[in-house]
Amino acid sequence: MGQDQSSVFDLAAVAAASNGGNNDPLLPPARFIGDPQKPSKMPYTKYVAYDKQVPFDYPERTWPGKRLQRAPRWCSVDLRDGNQALVNPMDSERKLRFWNMLVSMGFKEIEVGFPSASETDYDFIRMLIERELIPDDVTIVVLTQAREHLIRKTYECLKGAKRAVVHFYNSVSVLQREVVFRKDKAGIKKLATDAAELCKELEGEAGDTDLYYEYSPESFTGTEPDYATEVCNAVIDVIKPTPEHPMIINLPATVEMTTPNVFADQVEYVSNHLQDRDSVVLSLHPHNDEGMGVAAAELGILAGADRIEGCLLGNGERTGNVDLVTLGLNMLTQGIDPQIDYSNVPEIRKTVEYCNQIKISERHPYAGNFVFTAFSGSHQDAIKKGLEARQMAADRAGAALDNFVWLVPYLPIDPKDIGRSYEAIIRVNSQSGKGGMAYLLKTNHNLDLPKRLQVEFEKIVQRFADETKKEVKDADIWRLFKDEYLPVEEGGATAAGAVVGDSSDESLEQWGRLKLLKVAVSSGEDGSDTVIKVRLLDRGVRPGVDEPVERELSGVGNGPIAAFINAIQAIGINVSVMDYVEHTMTASTDAMAASYVECEIGEEPETTVIWGVGIDSSIITSSLKAIISAINRSER
Amino acid sequence: MGQDQSSVFDLAAVAAASNGGNNDPLLPPARFIGDPQKPSKMPYTKYVAYDKQVPFDYPERTWPGKRLQRAPRWCSVDLRDGNQALVNPMDSERKLRFWNMLVSMGFKEIEVGFPSASETDYDFIRMLIERELIPDDVTIVVLTQAREHLIRKTYECLKGAKRAVVHFYNSVSVLQREVVFRKDKAGIKKLATDAAELCKELEGEAGDTDLYYEYSPESFTGTEPDYATEVCNAVIDVIKPTPEHPMIINLPATVEMTTPNVFADQVEYVSNHLQDRDSVVLSLHPHNDEGMGVAAAELGILAGADRIEGCLLGNGERTGNVDLVTLGLNMLTQGIDPQIDYSNVPEIRKTVEYCNQIKISERHPYAGNFVFTAFSGSHQDAIKKGLEARQMAADRAGAALDNFVWLVPYLPIDPKDIGRSYEAIIRVNSQSGKGGMAYLLKTNHNLDLPKRLQVEFEKIVQRFADETKKEVKDADIWRLFKDEYLPVEEGGATAAGAVVGDSSDESLEQWGRLKLLKVAVSSGEDGSDTVIKVRLLDRGVRPGVDEPVERELSGVGNGPIAAFINAIQAIGINVSVMDYVEHTMTASTDAMAASYVECEIGEEPETTVIWGVGIDSSIITSSLKAIISAINRSER
Repeated sequence: MGQDQSSVFDLAAVAAASNGGNNDPLLPPARFIGDPQKPSKMPYTKYVAYDKQVPFDYPERTWPGKRLQRAPRWCSVDLRDGNQALVNPMDSERKLRFWNMLVSMGFKEIEVGFPSASETDYDFIRMLIERELIPDDVTIVVLTQAREHLIRKTYECLKGAKRAVVHFYNSVSVLQREVVFRKDKAGIKKLATDAAELCKELEGEAGDTDLYYEYSPESFTGTEPDYATEVCNAVIDVIKPTPEHPMIINLPATVEMTTPNVFADQVEYVSNHLQDRDSVVLSLHPHNDEGMGVAAAELGILAGADRIEGCLLGNGERTGNVDLVTLGLNMLTQGIDPQIDYSNVPEIRKTVEYCNQIKISERHPYAGNFVFTAFSGSHQDAIKKGLEARQMAADRAGAALDNFVWLVPYLPIDPKDIGRSYEAIIRVNSQSGKGGMAYLLKTNHNLDLPKRLQVEFEKIVQRFADETKKEVKDADIWRLFKDEYLPVEEGGATAAGAVVGDSSDESLEQWGRLKLLKVAVSSGEDGSDTVIKVRLLDRGVRPGVDEPVERELSGVGNGPIAAFINAIQAIGINVSVMDYVEHTMTASTDAMAASYVECEIGEEPETTVIWGVGIDSSIITSSLKAIISAINRSER
Repeated sequence: MGQDQSSVFDLAAVAAASNGGNNDPLLPPARFIGDPQKPSKMPYTKYVAYDKQVPFDYPERTWPGKRLQRAPRWCSVDLRDGNQALVNPMDSERKLRFWNMLVSMGFKEIEVGFPSASETDYDFIRMLIERELIPDDVTIVVLTQAREHLIRKTYECLKGAKRAVVHFYNSVSVLQREVVFRKDKAGIKKLATDAAELCKELEGEAGDTDLYYEYSPESFTGTEPDYATEVCNAVIDVIKPTPEHPMIINLPATVEMTTPNVFADQVEYVSNHLQDRDSVVLSLHPHNDEGMGVAAAELGILAGADRIEGCLLGNGERTGNVDLVTLGLNMLTQGIDPQIDYSNVPEIRKTVEYCNQIKISERHPYAGNFVFTAFSGSHQDAIKKGLEARQMAADRAGAALDNFVWLVPYLPIDPKDIGRSYEAIIRVNSQSGKGGMAYLLKTNHNLDLPKRLQVEFEKIVQRFADETKKEVKDADIWRLFKDEYLPVEEGGATAAGAVVGDSSDESLEQWGRLKLLKVAVSSGEDGSDTVIKVRLLDRGVRPGVDEPVERELSGVGNGPIAAFINAIQAIGINVSVMDYVEHTMTASTDAMAASYVECEIGEEPETTVIWGVGIDSSIITSSLKAIISAINRSER
């Protein structure tokens, strides 16, 4: 080095010159339909494959066959790595708010700053110490470069702390050794061991503070794993940790440079070659440059890591640090206690957005606005059935629903477990099918439509969605439903009055021909016929043109429906009932009932098969209203 | 099934009841500092580990030792999966704009809709076909559920297309078999083969359309891999693809349920057990529920997948589909031609945000506002040195910089290759060190400060940052620098007038004691002394109080600096120069020069070591100004 400063670039240029693009004859054949993809004009020859930059293979790997079993030890670096990556770093009010939330969520290790580089950090740490804001079971971590004056200032800042981790680092990568530090491997290692020795020396002046150490071979992902291990072992030699008083070795994926299987290989290699392994906590600090930080952390845990550093919702330099919320909740979905309380994700998000002044994406795992939303009709249908099946299984088991095993299609986690609601799950747009609107009618209006009725109503919703090209809100669906099936009901008086979530006050156009005004039913001893007397408002076949008249009709049958059908033949209406479903809408004794009838209306061969819906506190009235609903629709 | 509908939940409840949290005595010991983490109150006992839901191991795996070698075949599903997940699905104007962009970027397969489920989709596809908007080398894909009336409508929609892929699917997962379809394995397989048979049958009516097929065992991640393979093989049996006319088998991670190593195992298993493998294009469709969709796609490619379905910037149901931009640019950083043109990421982002009406996060890989930004001082320093080293290496190699091998710390990709600039790279906040401000002064003002001067000026910037607690903009740095080192220069007249990027018109408070008005230098034959005559404005040691006077001074020395130092002794100022650096500020002949001098000022023992800066078109004047700058600062 020094003499030949071109080495890194020269080697890289040779490697890049051999890039084959996709035209390498040694590559397996692509199976294309029609014309193949064409070469792009992207300058791929200036980039060097990771395994040409840092050649490494580890066939001894065991991690691919392992599964997550327990939560790692967590360290939040929000107040340091996260904070330093903000356009406007946090002031002390924001820092304290973040700190308090981290403590309340159960974090036991919190990196609080880089006190030798920033007065704000220094002052904040002094405040934590002097005002005794650090609970006994929480350990603060302070970062410093492995440089003498910075280490000295770091120790100065820690005076009076009960316990702390001094986290020192230097970059050990191939590239930085050459272009930044201009030192060879031995020189770079000496920077690390000199820092370790100075730390040990300064311990004497540290008073009662119980001091621990963390060392990071920074830019680990750009470093030969054997050399990184050599540097770590040299530091361990100086610090001399014990199982009772361990030290932390932290491997930063300072820049994510390739697929996480390679990172996991490196982690397993280091874990297997660290000396005094039982005195070392092996930690990872993944970044997310290639969008795989979460995977790198999880595969790294399989590979032997004990501890993860990251930020809530993935703040941090550039693309951010690994997101601890996603990691923790991924653990939860595997039946593992994350040991951090993520039960209020909306509150976490609010605080993080306030402190960082950066918004979270709509599709951010677990925290984004849309992540519990299903717009697809088949997804909605499956979610609806899944929730019902779970309810039934819980009932059979006599178990409380909240803690009953969670298995629902398309929802990997129960939204309620992280402070979110089911409300947003089903949203209807022009791409949705019947599942969504059926779910909304059931959830918000207690109407459980029979399957064929769903198919019928879906077309009406679909037409509306295609016309408006907007999301179809619950209020839209309810309005469409009332207009189609309940046109003669007073707006809100009967149907809407009894149902949940109806806040629309629009009075519908009352376009139906018939309206039921009064019913009297009498039947004798068992087996005898039912006699019905009804009073109907008949607006005529051309409502608004014909003069409305009130009609008294009566009929006889083996039940009220049959008697009613018989009665209305007097005004020339032929109805036969093909299917009939009814359910109560709430559990109380004054519950409303909903009736759904599928009717064939008219004379052969000109009959129409059509559904009607009726809602009333009396099951007799609701079923008659349903028949009238079908008749009105058939005459529309 | 049917008789015993409780099975899935019952089995899961038993599995979940055995969850050990983190207290399982069989788990390896955690290495904690101080008090350990505490159990949270998260309900981990209601979740079932993935390998208890879908037990699977594949020790024969070979993918962990493999590396990415070529771009897969890409299929954009933005117009279908992405579109259906929008609050407001795209209208035809937005769809067409997205389509045009996809075509221009080089996508050869584009899923354009679900025509049997949405009139909007149907109409859009008809428009593409009828207006002949589909280039000859682009194949459209249309999605349909494996149901007769939907398949028939799909074929209807394709009439007149030159070539198309009919993509049919049904859910095959353990959970959906039970709670949604209520069918056993044979029944679910029959849904798939019936659909395949219907497709073959309808081919007769398809006219000249060159038809291909894609089958997705939907909810693949919730399915036993051997059963999913069995269903796929049964479909292959019906479709009878050939190497010349292959079919696509697409494995959807409909919901991401666990770590991507497990997914890769499943992909490799299926790849090895598919029949007629050389007639099948094995495709993946990863979602991102656990934040690992990109990793699942990349490890899946290592495991044998040929093709990836996803969306630009990761749109799609819930947390979105895998992000094709990230995948493609990850390939580029490995020296692989992505075969898609991502050279204008800002334009892609703009179009995607317009069409989807969803904003991209600031930290989204490659596309987010902050992802090429370094706030950390040590990162800034390394980037500055890395860019310089790369420039030098390119110069040595006689290579054009743009296509020269890219190796820069903390920047995995050259921002220019994807339509972004270097401007945003270095931003300075209270957490930054000297690297950032040094970079900005160099890049924007052509001032290459010596290291010790950087250290001196850093403190001034740091104080400003700590006080304002805001990002320090380039204009702030320049103002601070001018005020500190160039107080007697006319605002913009000398220094600022010659430099790049100076748009601040603030006139500085002219607080300095001395100002150079005129210089005359004469020296005789070589070896003889230099004689200097200067005219200075002297505002006195208490500027604003003392009366300004003009002074004519002269001195002699072995050069102009020595002569000037000699001259100003006449007004009681003792200066000795400790370090001196000078450079031109531009390459032109009328270039300005910048001089930096480190001076020791005053009489022993009360001396001050301090830097001064001077800028002038004459190197003599610039160096005298630099000394005056140091004197003025020492008297401030």
